[in-house]
Amino acid sequence: MDPAAAEVFHRELSDRGCHALLVVAGSARDPDLAPFVGPVHLGRAFLVLPRPGLPGPAGGRAGLGFLTPMEREEAGRTGLPLLTPAALDVEQLLEERPEPARFWGALLVRGLEQCSVPPGRLALAGHLGAGLAVSFARELRDAGFELTDGHEVVRRLRQRKRPDEVEAIRDAARGTVAAFRRVAEVLRGAEHDRDGGLRTAGRPLTVGDLRREVFRVLADHGLEQPEGNIVAPAEEGAVPHSSGTDGRQLRVGESLVVDLYPRGRLFADCTRTFCVGEPPAALARGHALVREALERARAGVRPGVRGWSLQEETCRLLGDAGFPTPISHPGTETGYVHNLGHGVGYELHEYPSFRKESGAEGVLGEGDVITIEPGLYDPVAGWGVRLEDLLVVGEDGIAEDLAPLPYDLDPTSW
Amino acid sequence: MDPAAAEVFHRELSDRGCHALLVVAGSARDPDLAPFVGPVHLGRAFLVLPRPGLPGPAGGRAGLGFLTPMEREEAGRTGLPLLTPAALDVEQLLEERPEPARFWGALLVRGLEQCSVPPGRLALAGHLGAGLAVSFARELRDAGFELTDGHEVVRRLRQRKRPDEVEAIRDAARGTVAAFRRVAEVLRGAEHDRDGGLRTAGRPLTVGDLRREVFRVLADHGLEQPEGNIVAPAEEGAVPHSSGTDGRQLRVGESLVVDLYPRGRLFADCTRTFCVGEPPAALARGHALVREALERARAGVRPGVRGWSLQEETCRLLGDAGFPTPISHPGTETGYVHNLGHGVGYELHEYPSFRKESGAEGVLGEGDVITIEPGLYDPVAGWGVRLEDLLVVGEDGIAEDLAPLPYDLDPTSW
Repeated sequence: MDPAAAEVFHRELSDRGCHALLVVAGSARDPDLAPFVGPVHLGRAFLVLPRPGLPGPAGGRAGLGFLTPMEREEAGRTGLPLLTPAALDVEQLLEERPEPARFWGALLVRGLEQCSVPPGRLALAGHLGAGLAVSFARELRDAGFELTDGHEVVRRLRQRKRPDEVEAIRDAARGTVAAFRRVAEVLRGAEHDRDGGLRTAGRPLTVGDLRREVFRVLADHGLEQPEGNIVAPAEEGAVPHSSGTDGRQLRVGESLVVDLYPRGRLFADCTRTFCVGEPPAALARGHALVREALERARAGVRPGVRGWSLQEETCRLLGDAGFPTPISHPGTETGYVHNLGHGVGYELHEYPSFRKESGAEGVLGEGDVITIEPGLYDPVAGWGVRLEDLLVVGEDGIAEDLAPLPYDLDPTSW
Repeated sequence: MDPAAAEVFHRELSDRGCHALLVVAGSARDPDLAPFVGPVHLGRAFLVLPRPGLPGPAGGRAGLGFLTPMEREEAGRTGLPLLTPAALDVEQLLEERPEPARFWGALLVRGLEQCSVPPGRLALAGHLGAGLAVSFARELRDAGFELTDGHEVVRRLRQRKRPDEVEAIRDAARGTVAAFRRVAEVLRGAEHDRDGGLRTAGRPLTVGDLRREVFRVLADHGLEQPEGNIVAPAEEGAVPHSSGTDGRQLRVGESLVVDLYPRGRLFADCTRTFCVGEPPAALARGHALVREALERARAGVRPGVRGWSLQEETCRLLGDAGFPTPISHPGTETGYVHNLGHGVGYELHEYPSFRKESGAEGVLGEGDVITIEPGLYDPVAGWGVRLEDLLVVGEDGIAEDLAPLPYDLDPTSW
C-alpha cells in the first residue's frame, strides 16, 4: 500500500473502530480481494489486514489464508505473508467440522490468531456467501471478534488507481476501442435495401451480427463481458437499460447506442452512438447537445470537484435546451434520465460516486478512473444518444483519455 | 419448481427449521439466484421463496425484489411475482437510510412483509457481500427474522438439472468440443525442429498459441472462461493445478493436458491429454490405465451410487497397477492424486459430491450432470494424463455424453 492508500485505510478502519480488515472470497477475482493479491489464481481464500499501529504486544500482521496446498506457488506470488493450509490445519478442521459455517468460523479465528489480531471489532469484506458469513459471524463472536460491514473500506481503497491498475484498465480500453472501430467498419460496409433496412452479405444486418463481431474482437484482446453489453437501435436505445434484441435488423436513419464494458483484469467502459445515413433533425440536435454536455463536463474534471456538481451542470445545460432532467423531473424517462458518471475498476461501478448523497467518496481525486456519459432519450419518438468517455483524473484535469474515439453519428466519418 | 425439486426444497428448509429461503444477489448471474430467475439481466436483487404450506393466515408467497425501475421488464420475464422498487419504496428508503446495511435491512424486512412471511428463521443464500449480510442480519433480527446459512439449500436444489439447464450445459459443451478439435488440428499441423520443439508458421508453437485458439473458438460460441483453463505440457501437466505457462514451447513426445471449463449460461468441463509423436512407455501405459479407469467408472454411473464408491473403485484399479492413490497414500503428489469427479452447473463444482464425508449430496441422481476424471501424474519424470468426460446421469446409467471426443494421445487419430 502506498502512503496515501495507507492513510485512507487507517482512517476508514479507525472511523469504524475496527482492528483489522477481513476479506473472505471464493476466488482471487473477488473484487474485494483482487486489489490486494493481484492477478493470481486462487480458490477460496481470506485476507487479514490489521490497522497499522495496532496496540498490543504483537501489533498484528497481515496474512493471506488459502485452502488448497497446490495453490501455494500462486499464493506466494502475491508477496503477502501466507497462512498455508498446513499452518491453518485445514485437513483436521474439515474432518472435525465439516459444516461450512463451523469450519470457516474456526478457520478464520485461527488465521486471526496467527496474525496476532487482538479480539475486538473487524471490518468484513468479500463475497464468499451471505449465509455463510452470517453463520460464521456467530462463531467469531464467541471468540471475541465482532464483525461489521467492511465493503466500504475496500471500495474507498479501490477508488484511486495504482499505475498497474490504470494499465489493466488501459488494456481493457484498447480492446474496447478496437471493437468500436470494427462496429463502425461493419456499419460503413453495409448495404441498404429499398425499405432502409441494412444488409450484409445478402442478409439483414442485425444487432446480433454486431454483437458477434464485438465478442470476437474483445476475445482477441483477452476480454470477457461478464455484465453483457448494449447494442440498442432506435426504440431500444431510447430506454437506457435495454440491451438490444439480437434478431432486430438495423436501419438507415435510426440511432444505435453501443455501450461496451468488458473486463480483462479490470473493467473498461465506453459508449458511442451511430446513425447510418441522414439522422432525423431531433436526433442530430440531441447528438450535438450531448457532445456539448460531454465537452463541458470533461472541462470540469479535476481533483476536489464533486461528481454531483458536474451532474448539476449537465442538467442545467440540457434543461436549458428544453429537456426534462432528473433534477427538474425526478424519475423522468424522457430527456436526460440518468447520472453523469461513475468510477471504473475491479467492478464496473465503483467510486468516485456522482450521487447527490455522497460524502468523501463523491469527490474526484487524482488517479481516479471515471466515466462521463451524458445522454438524451425519447422513447416516444424512438431514439437515444449517449456518449461515454473513460478518463483518468490528473493533477489539474484529465490526465488521459483511455478510449479516444470519434464522436460522429456517421460511421463513414470514423 | 417441479414436484421433485419442491420436495427437496421443503425438506431442506424443514430440516433447518426455516420459514423461507432468502437469496440476496448483486446480479441475476449469482449462482444462487440464477436457477430461480433464468437468463435475465438484473442488478442487485433479492428473492423470497417461502416453504410450501407455511402456517399462518397468509401462508407466504414468493417475490422477486429489484432496485431499478428500468429493470421491470427483465424482472417480469422471470415469471415470478415482483416486488417493484415502487412497491418497496426504494427511493424513500435510500434517502432515509443511505448506509448500505440499514438500507438493505429495511428493504428485506419490507419484502418479507409483502410476501407475508411470518417472523422466524430464514435460510440465507446469495453472494451480495459478506460484510453487508452480517450487518443487515442485525436489522432483520430486530424485526424478528433470524438468518441461517441457506447456501446448501440452493446447492441441493441445483443438483438435479432441469431440461433447460441440461441444454445450457450442452451448449457450453458444444463450444468445448469445437475448441478441443481445434487444438488437435493445430497440433496435427505443427512442424518439428531438430530438437523436437513444435513450430507453426516458422515460430515456436507455445502454450499461449493454443490458449489463443481456444479463446477464439469459445468466443465464437459465446462462451467465457471465468475460471481460466489448463493447457499444461509435461512437467506442468504433472501437477494437476498448474495452468501452464504461455511462453512454454510444446515438444514432441511429451504429455499435454488440456482441461477446458468455459461458461455460457452454465459451465461445461472436459479434459483430454495429447502427445505429438511417439509417447514414452510410461506415458503410454499411464494413458491406457486412465482410459480403463474412465471406462470402469462410466460403467458404474447410475442413480443411487455414491460418488465415493466410484472413487474407491478407481483407487483400487490404479493402486493395483502400482500407483499411489489418495486412499493408499493420503496427500500423495505422484500417481492418482485427486478425486474422481463432481457435479457441474451454475458453478464449476457443485453437487453431487464425490467426497467420502458426503451425505445425501454424495449420491448420484437421475438428471445430475457430472464429470468423471481419473488421472495419473509423475512430477519427477514430468508427465501427466487426465481424461474427463461430462455426463448426464440417466435412469439406469449414462443418459448422454455431453462432450463426446476421441481419447487418443495422438492428435493425428482425432
